[in-house]
Amino acid sequence: MITSSSNSQVKHVAQLNARGKLRKEERLFAAEGIKLFREAPPELLEKVFVSESFEREHRDFLSRTGRSWEVVEDGVFSRMCDTRTPQGILSLVRMPSWTWEQVTGGSEPLILVLEDLQDPGNVGTILRTAEGAGVTGVLLSRNCVDLFHPKTIRSTMGSVYRMPCCFPEDILEAADRLRQQGIRTFAAHLAGKRSYAGEDYRGGSAFLIGNEGNGLSRQLADRADCLVRIPMEGQVESLNAAVAAAVLMYTAHAQRHPEE
Amino acid sequence: MITSSSNSQVKHVAQLNARGKLRKEERLFAAEGIKLFREAPPELLEKVFVSESFEREHRDFLSRTGRSWEVVEDGVFSRMCDTRTPQGILSLVRMPSWTWEQVTGGSEPLILVLEDLQDPGNVGTILRTAEGAGVTGVLLSRNCVDLFHPKTIRSTMGSVYRMPCCFPEDILEAADRLRQQGIRTFAAHLAGKRSYAGEDYRGGSAFLIGNEGNGLSRQLADRADCLVRIPMEGQVESLNAAVAAAVLMYTAHAQRHPEE
Repeated sequence: MITSSSNSQVKHVAQLNARGKLRKEERLFAAEGIKLFREAPPELLEKVFVSESFEREHRDFLSRTGRSWEVVEDGVFSRMCDTRTPQGILSLVRMPSWTWEQVTGGSEPLILVLEDLQDPGNVGTILRTAEGAGVTGVLLSRNCVDLFHPKTIRSTMGSVYRMPCCFPEDILEAADRLRQQGIRTFAAHLAGKRSYAGEDYRGGSAFLIGNEGNGLSRQLADRADCLVRIPMEGQVESLNAAVAAAVLMYTAHAQRHPEE
Repeated sequence: MITSSSNSQVKHVAQLNARGKLRKEERLFAAEGIKLFREAPPELLEKVFVSESFEREHRDFLSRTGRSWEVVEDGVFSRMCDTRTPQGILSLVRMPSWTWEQVTGGSEPLILVLEDLQDPGNVGTILRTAEGAGVTGVLLSRNCVDLFHPKTIRSTMGSVYRMPCCFPEDILEAADRLRQQGIRTFAAHLAGKRSYAGEDYRGGSAFLIGNEGNGLSRQLADRADCLVRIPMEGQVESLNAAVAAAVLMYTAHAQRHPEE
């Protein structure tokens, strides 16, 4: 049992939460909560910490998992957590790694390209929605908020473990590569002349989603096969990025599964 | 110019940010940022505060608005704000008030019913999306997070000024009343046997959206004409409430505007 905040493991986890660079170096991140513990792929789960109270209440559950766990005094445990009211269980997980083929391959892939998204909640929600909508994989530009930021991880509700993601050095080159693979690229863009609803997404398709404040960069939008607009009534100037992505992804899903 | 944190106006605004009860009593809320200042209906705008730096940089803009403003020393100004890095302008705004007829009337209305939503960002994003999708009005149950919470206000991006909203005492009675008006009620529900994509939302329609963790209450779901399911691939157990609402609203929008 760990009872001191100066314990090296406690410090390590707190630093992993705080420092994206450290996460990247060690290819390791902390995932809080029962759901993110339960759904962690066994081969990626490095270590499990639980608070004293959690162990007391959930000993049966913990025993049934067949994993070992380390107990941490409640006050010290909360130092390891990014949330204000921790659930009492924290997993150290190795980052999944995916190949370009996993993210973009297969027959008629459906792909998301995220350019410079800054809000961890948005990126997490997009991953969760992407899994639900049957997206093949997600490409994130280097300036996107860190996928392994504690808040992003939580917002994915576990999809971070399953949704293939790549972080291409150059997102423009990545868009070119998609087109070379015969994937049609659709830029969600306010200047789009065609409504998203009239397009056909049944073949290999990629949606390009831009930064919350500025939208897609000119360079990336220029590379798209088609600029599509989501119509907006009233005085709305733009939609939330996760909402726009969801509308596009589920339109593609509905076209691809007309029986549902 | 206000230079002291103990100034009564500074305290008043800070309390309005912190206390929903006070907002309700005074029917007044604080709206931060340029966009929420610009879009505030003139008849509801009570008072404008700006930080010293904001005034220095934006004096022309302020003069052009034809409004008077009160200058607040930067450090004191940030005490009035809910955000960490305030933009430097804060508006005191009276709550808009809408009638049941404005929220649910007109020809073929499209309505959202939100039951016990807890996340301010979700509720704000839903209002923003609702305006974009051409929703007529939104009914919020009494246990929803306060629409005039500073975070909700910001997430609406101004839609809070324009989207008719009602807060019925009893959301079950409200659902009954919608049905009596001939409005079809669709509950977004995991147990729905019919996919949302196959339904017709061109007539008067209402979408019932439940709490983030628990979904719709049994009582409200039982009152719906139809339970609709948004299909989910992979291991996704549910969608974010704002995402689910967006998928439904924009499906209705696409049906209602087939030319777009």
